[in-house]
Amino acid sequence: MTLVDGLPAGVVSVNDRGLLYGDGVFRTLKRAGGITLCWARQYGKLAADCAALDLRCPDAAILETELERLPPDCVAKIIITRGRADRGYAVARDALPSRIVISSPLPLYPPSYATVGVKVRLCGLRLASQPRLAGIKHLNRLENVLARMEWNDPAIAEGLLLDAAGDVVEGTMSNVFCCRAGVLHTPDLSGCGVAGVQRERILDFAARSGMAVRVAKLPLGALMAADEVMLCNSVIGLWPVREFNGRTWEVGAVAGRLRQWLEERDD
Amino acid sequence: MTLVDGLPAGVVSVNDRGLLYGDGVFRTLKRAGGITLCWARQYGKLAADCAALDLRCPDAAILETELERLPPDCVAKIIITRGRADRGYAVARDALPSRIVISSPLPLYPPSYATVGVKVRLCGLRLASQPRLAGIKHLNRLENVLARMEWNDPAIAEGLLLDAAGDVVEGTMSNVFCCRAGVLHTPDLSGCGVAGVQRERILDFAARSGMAVRVAKLPLGALMAADEVMLCNSVIGLWPVREFNGRTWEVGAVAGRLRQWLEERDD
Repeated sequence: MTLVDGLPAGVVSVNDRGLLYGDGVFRTLKRAGGITLCWARQYGKLAADCAALDLRCPDAAILETELERLPPDCVAKIIITRGRADRGYAVARDALPSRIVISSPLPLYPPSYATVGVKVRLCGLRLASQPRLAGIKHLNRLENVLARMEWNDPAIAEGLLLDAAGDVVEGTMSNVFCCRAGVLHTPDLSGCGVAGVQRERILDFAARSGMAVRVAKLPLGALMAADEVMLCNSVIGLWPVREFNGRTWEVGAVAGRLRQWLEERDD
Repeated sequence: MTLVDGLPAGVVSVNDRGLLYGDGVFRTLKRAGGITLCWARQYGKLAADCAALDLRCPDAAILETELERLPPDCVAKIIITRGRADRGYAVARDALPSRIVISSPLPLYPPSYATVGVKVRLCGLRLASQPRLAGIKHLNRLENVLARMEWNDPAIAEGLLLDAAGDVVEGTMSNVFCCRAGVLHTPDLSGCGVAGVQRERILDFAARSGMAVRVAKLPLGALMAADEVMLCNSVIGLWPVREFNGRTWEVGAVAGRLRQWLEERDD
């Protein structure tokens, strides 16, 4: 099922700035039992990302109505672009955003990914630092594409990306956390990376429960020395990392606790 | 006139990776009197950009046939994307690229832009350094969009962009040259920027005619101290810069000579 500006359609104009320039943002959401999970946060992040690019964000109610037309259990993708345009980068004052809602079947990951953990590789591509776009889930995703092209081995579930300085930023499709001596660490994303909703939830839950949290530069060496490493996004939930860069980990107590939080709550 | 995979159509699938990720490349070409200008170079650059992203480039003959169906005098845009995809960044081995050819009317710039020069501003946005994407005319153009959003004054014809180190890289839609004491300078684009076909032509012509050329980091101060500053792309040709960052310039001999080269030849 695909809706473009509310109508069943599988296409957009070739003059849509989403295609021409990647001029837009998106969200990937999970629907389960007819509920769009974490919708309030997802919409909040969509609106914030639109604002960062000076894009008009559709009303939540419009998107909610459209999400309800999707299958009850699916992956939903919302794309907001700056709409159709004349030639050139300049933005017309009357530009009407395009609103695209796409459903896909839920992916079938091995259950062991959540219970035993995943094998992860270190990507060679280094993320560029662009503070104006950092954190935003925008449509300029060639770095992720190139990084994902680095491996074909289906046993590798994800690749971790460093910035030019060699600090860990994120996975190609996930945010990363690690835990050392009871302190939860996740990379600061002010230079690059996507600040995902599950990352935000984990940070909130941890703060509310009194867990020590540190959002800062995360050198690769610090990640390698961690007691636990884990990945999160809205489709996978939370995966512990079992193997990365020549080291292995057992699934630890923090990963179990965080996964339970993510699964049991919807705020 | 728009052709998608050779058929008259104005739309692409919402699952096209060009829209989802900006996973593709493009060229902007000028057609004049039924001729697509500098076609051999344009195709060469398209093929090189496709290769850099591991995209299959369509045969030149296919694109030539399609370009001939466009109006004799127009701006032609060729977009090659990685085609339709399932969800996720991973690239399917059998991915069939999408081939989009769009014509637009030639823009009407004031004739004074070429003869007297243009007023240019300094953009606040700094281009990120990403060697893996530098030089490629890919579809991830949010930096250009954000930079172009910095001004609305129609008297300003272009904005110049610096990298994080403060060196001049390019205009939002053009390459930049300057000349000082008989030496032609243009920024090295190994970290960011688009290496345009007109830039390549100027470098070739200058080398062949024995003009001293330097392709290197170009500090803003060096540009400000230049005897002449000019911009080029395939639609505008060459524009001298008349006013930039608090300084003015007269149109000089080098700009005249380069414009003559660009206009008189088609190699």
